Amino acid sequence: MSCVATFSLFPLERPDQGSFAPYVARTIEIVRASGLPYELGAMGTVLEGDFDEIMQTIKHCHDDMRKGCGRVYLNLTVDSREGDPGRMRDKVDSVGELLK
Amino acid sequence: MSCVATFSLFPLERPDQGSFAPYVARTIEIVRASGLPYELGAMGTVLEGDFDEIMQTIKHCHDDMRKGCGRVYLNLTVDSREGDPGRMRDKVDSVGELLK
Amino acid sequence: MSCVATFSLFPLERPDQGSFAPYVARTIEIVRASGLPYELGAMGTVLEGDFDEIMQTIKHCHDDMRKGCGRVYLNLTVDSREGDPGRMRDKVDSVGELLK
Amino acid sequence: MSCVATFSLFPLERPDQGSFAPYVARTIEIVRASGLPYELGAMGTVLEGDFDEIMQTIKHCHDDMRKGCGRVYLNLTVDSREGDPGRMRDKVDSVGELLK
Repeated sequence: MSCVATFSLFPLERPDQGSFAPYVARTIEIVRASGLPYELGAMGTVLEGDFDEIMQTIKHCHDDMRKGCGRVYLNLTVDSREGDPGRMRDKVDSVGELLK
Repeated sequence: MSCVATFSLFPLERPDQGSFAPYVARTIEIVRASGLPYELGAMGTVLEGDFDEIMQTIKHCHDDMRKGCGRVYLNLTVDSREGDPGRMRDKVDSVGELLK
Repeated sequence: MSCVATFSLFPLERPDQGSFAPYVARTIEIVRASGLPYELGAMGTVLEGDFDEIMQTIKHCHDDMRKGCGRVYLNLTVDSREGDPGRMRDKVDSVGELLK
Repeated sequence: MSCVATFSLFPLERPDQGSFAPYVARTIEIVRASGLPYELGAMGTVLEGDFDEIMQTIKHCHDDMRKGCGRVYLNLTVDSREGDPGRMRDKVDSVGELLK
């Protein structure tokens, strides 16, 4: 199975009022530790793996953020199908090919 | 912990071309079997529970739909905080109170 | 054309720290003024209309909230097709029929 | 005003059964014609502009896809605040700085 997902996770209630960047950076550390291929974007992080690996990684990110914040918001989209790894890159390249 | 979530799950590749209703009905059967409070809406199903209960229920729905469909799309949003059960109703009622 | 949409709109930077309910209530007032059929839920508001009517209503809600808040977050999903009005109800009823 | 948005738009009913890539490529052509800075990703396209520019561009993409497809699905998220252009890049760089 090959799932490509994108998620954004941020605090709605937190002890500080500054940038969200430290919260996103902490999430990326957890995603990196998962070993799943990922790509950080301006509105979310794309990652690839099987469904359980992705949901497990997102659970770690959620649980970690909830330790320090009273309320968090998760927005997750998953495109799940059979397929070889590398879809994250292939989906973009196949569009790029058509735009040449 | 009290999470309120909304999700929509539908096939992008499927053996038929008809309405999505049978796929949504099958998902609701799985949500019902989870015992979590839920509400079916026109654009998704709202459910309440702790984070792991919700993610486990969504995994069951995903795995079930993937058995019959080559590709499925999941769109999930979670509002996660401390709190007593019943937030699903309270969130709507608190807005209703202000609109009286 | 018949679009059924669901959206949630909330401040990420605001002058207060209380409940989001007043912000949601204000949004519902604007949705009501649009005359579009709607349904308030725990994780978003469903509304029905043609694409331009929906986007115009959401623009009003966004512009209104941005007057008082430094940063707002919009999460919108639209299911757009030909069809008679009333899809908001029909989509739920057609699933209910299958679950009888 | 500076909005950073991400959207995915795809057909649920279409005359063909192949890859979604041609539909995404067509959407990117419209985004390019808008002149807004954008970035194509595996799960959506990020773009930056003021709220009205973004919503207008998405309307063009929607209307164009609906000409050829009986039903389309839009998933849009907008992060709207005051700010100089270039937030699309800055949001990612500010996280990258913390991960060095």
